[in-house]
Amino acid sequence: MDIPHVYLNGHIVPLAEAAISPLDIGLLRGYAVFDLLRTVGGRPFLLTEHLKRLRASADELNLKVPVDDATIAQAIERLLELNQHAEATVRLLLTGGVSPDGRTASDGDPTFLILTHELQDLAPNVYEDSVGLMLVEHARELPQAKSTNYLTMLKRMPDAKETGNMSILYHKDGRISEAASASFYIVKDEVILAPSAGVLYGTVGPRILALAEKSGHRVIRGQITLDDALAADEAFITSTTRGVVPIVRLSQNTIGTGRPGPVTRKLIGLFKQLLQEAYCAAQDQCSKRSRSASIALSETALDPP
Amino acid sequence: MDIPHVYLNGHIVPLAEAAISPLDIGLLRGYAVFDLLRTVGGRPFLLTEHLKRLRASADELNLKVPVDDATIAQAIERLLELNQHAEATVRLLLTGGVSPDGRTASDGDPTFLILTHELQDLAPNVYEDSVGLMLVEHARELPQAKSTNYLTMLKRMPDAKETGNMSILYHKDGRISEAASASFYIVKDEVILAPSAGVLYGTVGPRILALAEKSGHRVIRGQITLDDALAADEAFITSTTRGVVPIVRLSQNTIGTGRPGPVTRKLIGLFKQLLQEAYCAAQDQCSKRSRSASIALSETALDPP
Repeated sequence: MDIPHVYLNGHIVPLAEAAISPLDIGLLRGYAVFDLLRTVGGRPFLLTEHLKRLRASADELNLKVPVDDATIAQAIERLLELNQHAEATVRLLLTGGVSPDGRTASDGDPTFLILTHELQDLAPNVYEDSVGLMLVEHARELPQAKSTNYLTMLKRMPDAKETGNMSILYHKDGRISEAASASFYIVKDEVILAPSAGVLYGTVGPRILALAEKSGHRVIRGQITLDDALAADEAFITSTTRGVVPIVRLSQNTIGTGRPGPVTRKLIGLFKQLLQEAYCAAQDQCSKRSRSASIALSETALDPP
Repeated sequence: MDIPHVYLNGHIVPLAEAAISPLDIGLLRGYAVFDLLRTVGGRPFLLTEHLKRLRASADELNLKVPVDDATIAQAIERLLELNQHAEATVRLLLTGGVSPDGRTASDGDPTFLILTHELQDLAPNVYEDSVGLMLVEHARELPQAKSTNYLTMLKRMPDAKETGNMSILYHKDGRISEAASASFYIVKDEVILAPSAGVLYGTVGPRILALAEKSGHRVIRGQITLDDALAADEAFITSTTRGVVPIVRLSQNTIGTGRPGPVTRKLIGLFKQLLQEAYCAAQDQCSKRSRSASIALSETALDPP
C-alpha cells in the first residue's frame, strides 16, 4: 500500500511519522471500531451513512469520535488531495486510546486515524462468474459495531481461498448472519430476504434494497436460516468496495441455477447506475444523456456471455 | 504506567521511540495474541508455561513467534534491569505485522513486542472478602488462543464494577467457560470441577490443580453448567496477577456460605507457598526454615478474621 499521508489525532502527517503507541488499547485489547468508504469520481461515496455508522459503532463500545463530521470530511478531502489515488478507499479508525493500565481505555482521549488506500477494483467477471462463499460457524461479537475484530475471517480466509471461494459466510445455530466483510441476501420467488438481527447495518445494502423496493421488488427483513439460504433461487452480497456480487455457491452447495439470477443482475445494474450518478455529480457533468448512456452500458455489461 | 523501555522486533528502545505502524494488522483487524506473566523476586514466574502458551496462541492464528525462548528470556531480563520495577508484569504481544492491504497479515514478518509494567498487587482482603463476578452471556472466539480481543470485557467491565463485582464470568448455552481474564473453578462436595473445553489453557490454574491433587483432592475436568456453578459449595478464579481468589457471588446469587470455603483457602495457601518458593529461588536464599516459616505465615493470614 502506498499511503504517503495519514490523519492522526488532528494532524495530517507522513505515514512514517504516524506512530501508534504500543500502549494503545486498540492494539493491546482490540478495543477499536472502524469504517471504510470508497470514493467515486474522487469524492467520498455515502459519506453521511459511513460517518453515522462509525458513530453508532463507537457508541456500542462507549467510545466517542473526537471530531465533528465537517472536520472529518475536510481531513478526508485533504488526504485525497495529497495522496492522489485514482479512486480510493478511506479507512476511519477509532480506538480507546493509550491505556493507563493495559486493561482499560484512556479516559476520554481516543486515537482517531484516517488512512487512504488505492481502490482495488474487482475483476469485472466477478459479477458474471460463479462466486462461492465458504460456510463457517461463527457469529460476530457485538455485531452492531464494526469492531476491528476479524480473528475468524483472517484465520479462515486462506482455507476459503484454497477451496475456490471469494469469502466466508457466517452461520450459527442454524441461522445466517453476514459474510466476512459484506452483507448477505437471498432471493426466493423474486422476494429479497435480508437478515435483520445480529448483523452490521450496511451502507450499500440498505441503499440497494431501497432501490429494489422502488422498482417493485418485495423485501422481507427477518431471520434467514441456513436451510433458507441453501434453498434460495439467488444469493448476493453487498459491500462498499465490491458493490453487489452474485453468490452461486455456499461451500459445496450450488444456489439456484449456479449462475447469477435475474433479480441479482437487476440489482447490479441499479448499483452501477447509482455509482454512475455519483460519478457524474463528483465531476459536475451529469446530463440526462450521459446518465441514460451509462445505464445502458451497465445493463449490456450484465448480459450473459 | 511507567515503561521507559520496551522490546520491539529485536531492539530494546525507549517507549517513546517504539512506534507501531498504523498499518499493523494487530491494530487494523485485531489479529494478535499475547501473554502476560509476572515476576517473583524479580525473576519471571512460570516463564516456560507462558512461552509455551504464547506459541500455542500464535499457532491458532497461523502466526509464528519470530525468536526462540532464550532470546525472549534474555530480552525480558534486560528490560527488567532497565525498568527497575519492584515486581513486574511482562506482556508479550505478537501481531500479524504490517498489512500489505488492510485485510491480511504480513507474509512472515510479524510484530513482536515486550512491555513490562509495575505489578499491581490486589488488596490483601480480596482473599477474604466477598468477591463477586457479574454473569455475562458470551463465549470467547477462538478460546484456545489468548487473542487481544477483549471487546466484551472492556464494554461490560464498567457495569460489573458499578454493581460491586471484581470481574465477569462468561456463560453461553447454559455452560460456564471462564472469567474475563482468569480461569474459573467450582468445588462441590470437596471435589474441584474445572471446565475443560472452550477455555484458554491456564498457567497458574493447572499448577494449582496439580498441587490440589497431590494433597489429596479429587479434580474433575469437564463441562460445568451455570446451574452447577450456582449450586456449588465454593468457587474461585486463578490468574497470573491475582493467584487464587475466592468467589462468593455470581451476579445476585450467593455461592455456598457466602464466605471463602475451606478448599479455596487451602489452595490460596498452596499458591502462596509456590510463590514463596519461587521467591526463595529467585533470591537464592531458600532454606528449610524460611520456607516453613513462610507457609505458616500464609496459613495464618488465611484464618477467618
